[in-house]
Amino acid sequence: MAASPTAKRRPRSSRSKRDDIIYAAIEYFGQHGYEYTKWADIAKEVGIGSTALYHYFESKLHCLYEIQALALQADRAKFENAIAENEDFKEALKAVLNSAFELTDHEVLRNRVLVAEQSLAGLHRTSVREEESRQLGRSQMRDLEFAWATFLTRGMEQGAIPQADPRLLARAILGLYNSVWHWYRPRGGSLSIDEIREFYVARCLAVAGLPLEVPAKAKSRPAAKRKS
Amino acid sequence: MAASPTAKRRPRSSRSKRDDIIYAAIEYFGQHGYEYTKWADIAKEVGIGSTALYHYFESKLHCLYEIQALALQADRAKFENAIAENEDFKEALKAVLNSAFELTDHEVLRNRVLVAEQSLAGLHRTSVREEESRQLGRSQMRDLEFAWATFLTRGMEQGAIPQADPRLLARAILGLYNSVWHWYRPRGGSLSIDEIREFYVARCLAVAGLPLEVPAKAKSRPAAKRKS
Repeated sequence: MAASPTAKRRPRSSRSKRDDIIYAAIEYFGQHGYEYTKWADIAKEVGIGSTALYHYFESKLHCLYEIQALALQADRAKFENAIAENEDFKEALKAVLNSAFELTDHEVLRNRVLVAEQSLAGLHRTSVREEESRQLGRSQMRDLEFAWATFLTRGMEQGAIPQADPRLLARAILGLYNSVWHWYRPRGGSLSIDEIREFYVARCLAVAGLPLEVPAKAKSRPAAKRKS
Repeated sequence: MAASPTAKRRPRSSRSKRDDIIYAAIEYFGQHGYEYTKWADIAKEVGIGSTALYHYFESKLHCLYEIQALALQADRAKFENAIAENEDFKEALKAVLNSAFELTDHEVLRNRVLVAEQSLAGLHRTSVREEESRQLGRSQMRDLEFAWATFLTRGMEQGAIPQADPRLLARAILGLYNSVWHWYRPRGGSLSIDEIREFYVARCLAVAGLPLEVPAKAKSRPAAKRKS
């Protein structure tokens, strides 16, 4: 059976145990790193044996691919919602970017897992289940890029943002967005997700060609204040 | 491995053999991925036995850390040169960014290795040599970020760019820059490094708060008018 995010509904108990595993895996991978996490740690965390874990995921890598696919699925849903709620292109662009930073600490960790281990998503797998999940994540990544490029093209056609190669622009905005998760730590860091959001949304808009909006307080503050 | 990298054979001395190994490793890691590269492939490429390889590097991971440290060293040297040659802040910023995209195909692969495997740089190693190389790369990354933040602070103090958290801004610019190497392929892709440079330098300047300069061909199209 293909254990993908879009897989058919299963009995409730089975389904929620799978969710528990994914939740625990995100916490472990996100906090300790994928390489440093033992599959057995996750089994212990969710209270099942290592053997039972294999009922849900073929391997630690299979679980990672599922997490990546789920993260991209969530990103895409947010993207579509924000666009649907805003007729005006600029408002829609701001809404899309702001919503992308509306994240719980757990979701920040999920994004971290997504970007930190993206090189593993480039490896072809011989296991059918692993390869299915990997391909699902990859096609979702391509779809998200394409949806962004289509959306940006609309903005260019309306004259809301300057003309540019829409695919390249989509990659630049997504690249700037994803770069945050390489270093940002939700717990114990000196910056809140709202401070990150304010800073990065303004910069993503600037990448798209809109003038940089500098917050009022930053204008009057001397540089080099914060150290994290 | 099917595609043999284009490593040049150099005169046999201890130092140049080490360079050969690094050159070959960048080609293999960059083209086939770090995980997919066998240490023995690199030994074969440079014409030494696997055992002899251990004279130079303790492991494949040790070699990866050395490559990452060398890449950051080269980035830093370029950064300092570009700054030294330009008194004016805006000119210096443009020069720094442009020089960062002046790369051979081999250097693009090196950057790809740097960013694709950055999660491995977060793993503490018990081997002394591995850990030394890993720490060297990490401190060079921090130094480069700090040098960028210091440079950007100068621009803010001069009023050349808007006030912002300089460390956050340094990370955003470096993050946007590094995002390119996750997907850009120097050989066989449809975009030249010069097209990439033109697009990304303009976007990095926009992130810093300078108005986006749209290339002439895009300006001539009606939708390209910028609103403020």
